[in-house]
Amino acid sequence: MKKTCIKNGIFITSDTSNPVIRGYMVIEGNRITSIHEGSPAESEIFDEYIDGTNKLYMPGLVNTHGHAAMSLLRGYGDDMALQIWLEQKMWPMEAKFTTQDVKWGTLLSILEMLKGGTTTFVDMYDHMNEVAQAVEQSGMRACLTRGVIGLCPPDVQVAKLNEATEFAKNWHGKADGRITTMMSPHAPYTCPPDYIEKIVQVAHDLNLPIHTHMSETSREVQANVDQYGLRPVAHLEKIGVFSRPTLVAHGVHLTDEEIEVLKRYDVRISHNPGSNLKLASGVARVPELLRAGVKVSLGTDGAASNNNLDMFEEMRLAALIHKGVSGDPVAVPATEALLMGTKWGAESIWLDNVGQLAPGMKADFIALDIDQPHFLPKTDFISHAIYSASAKDVVDVCVDGKWVVRGGQCLTLDEEKIKFEFEQCFDRLTQS
Amino acid sequence: MKKTCIKNGIFITSDTSNPVIRGYMVIEGNRITSIHEGSPAESEIFDEYIDGTNKLYMPGLVNTHGHAAMSLLRGYGDDMALQIWLEQKMWPMEAKFTTQDVKWGTLLSILEMLKGGTTTFVDMYDHMNEVAQAVEQSGMRACLTRGVIGLCPPDVQVAKLNEATEFAKNWHGKADGRITTMMSPHAPYTCPPDYIEKIVQVAHDLNLPIHTHMSETSREVQANVDQYGLRPVAHLEKIGVFSRPTLVAHGVHLTDEEIEVLKRYDVRISHNPGSNLKLASGVARVPELLRAGVKVSLGTDGAASNNNLDMFEEMRLAALIHKGVSGDPVAVPATEALLMGTKWGAESIWLDNVGQLAPGMKADFIALDIDQPHFLPKTDFISHAIYSASAKDVVDVCVDGKWVVRGGQCLTLDEEKIKFEFEQCFDRLTQS
Repeated sequence: MKKTCIKNGIFITSDTSNPVIRGYMVIEGNRITSIHEGSPAESEIFDEYIDGTNKLYMPGLVNTHGHAAMSLLRGYGDDMALQIWLEQKMWPMEAKFTTQDVKWGTLLSILEMLKGGTTTFVDMYDHMNEVAQAVEQSGMRACLTRGVIGLCPPDVQVAKLNEATEFAKNWHGKADGRITTMMSPHAPYTCPPDYIEKIVQVAHDLNLPIHTHMSETSREVQANVDQYGLRPVAHLEKIGVFSRPTLVAHGVHLTDEEIEVLKRYDVRISHNPGSNLKLASGVARVPELLRAGVKVSLGTDGAASNNNLDMFEEMRLAALIHKGVSGDPVAVPATEALLMGTKWGAESIWLDNVGQLAPGMKADFIALDIDQPHFLPKTDFISHAIYSASAKDVVDVCVDGKWVVRGGQCLTLDEEKIKFEFEQCFDRLTQS
Repeated sequence: MKKTCIKNGIFITSDTSNPVIRGYMVIEGNRITSIHEGSPAESEIFDEYIDGTNKLYMPGLVNTHGHAAMSLLRGYGDDMALQIWLEQKMWPMEAKFTTQDVKWGTLLSILEMLKGGTTTFVDMYDHMNEVAQAVEQSGMRACLTRGVIGLCPPDVQVAKLNEATEFAKNWHGKADGRITTMMSPHAPYTCPPDYIEKIVQVAHDLNLPIHTHMSETSREVQANVDQYGLRPVAHLEKIGVFSRPTLVAHGVHLTDEEIEVLKRYDVRISHNPGSNLKLASGVARVPELLRAGVKVSLGTDGAASNNNLDMFEEMRLAALIHKGVSGDPVAVPATEALLMGTKWGAESIWLDNVGQLAPGMKADFIALDIDQPHFLPKTDFISHAIYSASAKDVVDVCVDGKWVVRGGQCLTLDEEKIKFEFEQCFDRLTQS
């Protein structure tokens, strides 16, 4: 097995016992086998040496909530009231999406994410076979799920659930184990309770987790109370969702009691600060969630509500907004924002061998070019990564031991073709 | 005079009568002489043609509050309570700054700003001759002021004011008119009222504007009430500050009545969203300020509290946080965030011929590489510039008709030497 040594590097590890290492890291196959201060012993021989001078290495970023194909709707409707945006802009366009649109929209997002340092993403959408094939081709890691909306006749409900089940069954563990799957009722307000129960039963049968949107807006929380007499957390608890390992997107509007329930069931929250701000959904109670011991990670959501897929920006927003809103300058420090974007992100989708630079971990890591003014002085590189860096600083990306980006170029995908086909899709969608 | 035509470009103009033009722009000397849809007439002859294909042109960004030399303190203290941060980290280090430190710290910041699309900046600091010389050398535009803190013996007060006066007098209009100056009492809480009155008198004598920090934290507002019986706005009004054209930094904690007073005196506010969030100062009432007709622009503040100098990020934060905090998804739309970063920024420092791409304007403009995934589809380029772009997308920068950055390289400054000298300064500061 090929043995590669990256030397003279600065490594942000997301391993809290050893957060920053100035030294070298060894990769064998798809694993990190060692990481140490200083230089390797002269007696140790490697098949390949990579000089890490002027590079900052860190775990690949984990984006725990999104809808990749929605890149086709980037900039298509902004600065609008939520219902007008959804009803007049998003839904009519999404209704027209074909498998080709999902394919090229997803590939463009994968390209943007990979080049920007995201090595793993969660995707909840439709036409998921196209998404899985794009992931397989790209070399990226992903946790995928066909999100089902149950506001439809019973036969359509059944067809959607069958499709979601087949997808989850067929793709779990595929692409050298880079793809895992989940079952997804889209949200409590888009799925009748009995339908959610059926989806949960499939998750039990297949031993898969659940992913759902929850408590994104106060309006949605109130509607849940009006319709079911319960706020979303109690409602989902009652119909058994939390009997499965669960990843919830958003979780903006939560009471102290709800946070306790989420902690008790070990429900994970994908915090989407950019999307929540842009859609005026509010500011999630992240400091309280973290204090209660709930695992919080970060997601970009779709590009229509973000509008880029830069996970450095989500880490920075997570570190900034909770300070500003709470008035507490030590709320969500850079070290926690880093964990939310890396280790806790991986753990949120039940990947315990991804998200850290440490022996035994999968070789999912990225390198930033730090020979730039905004990375000086060489003080605190965790601070620089969170408060100063951006996706555009990423130069090299390795997933599962394979280089997918080198020198800023994606090696696995044809960027020019993807951009061309993507624009063709957009033109077709807007002209039809 | 050389006549240059940039053709096949997409131009965001910040001219509200004509916000986006797909066509060509003509530059003669240091002025934009025309900008039109389509292509120039074949009969029109130019000395130089530049192909703008795949580039997004926009006015150079205007950063209306900062302390450039504080780049030396980037990452030196983060995630700390404000007083500990100031007293244990910032102030002891700043007390050691020599002219050399200010020189190289400022040059590093100018490099970062220029390469990131900022063409004009406001700087309030000490050792200002070094700052002005750095501006002159760089080709950048700047509005400079020696900020004075009056908590010192009378003879030191006099010496500081003399220094600030000499600086303002000597440099106003220099560097081909690229440098203008202001007079700056640092803040109402760091200058006794009679000292501020003396500074205002000099501003009257020299016919210069005033720049000051005001109402950044609620603590500072309360201290003003305790000490002077007035909140900062009434206090500064009473001692005559607003009798001069005034640019105020921060203005986070304002009542409705104070907003009315600021509007009445046409006081301009430099909104610093990144710094206000990071230092947990709070969220300025920008939607209310804009509704009242107060001119609001954007500043990065120093790199110690930001931590980069990316004005795209400030525009994005301005467009995002006020939506999230107010619950109004149309608060501070992208079009307004753009004006805050360009036209209103220029107007906030009394430059009426900068900040727009329009005939007669100074040729201060930038180009972004939009042949990248996060600029697709080609929908709304103002949305893309605000919600998706970053400083790292900037490839070309022109100030006063001269190229200062081409293809991502700064043409006026020696980047390697600046980085080297900057690191030497930091090492000296931390070892002494």
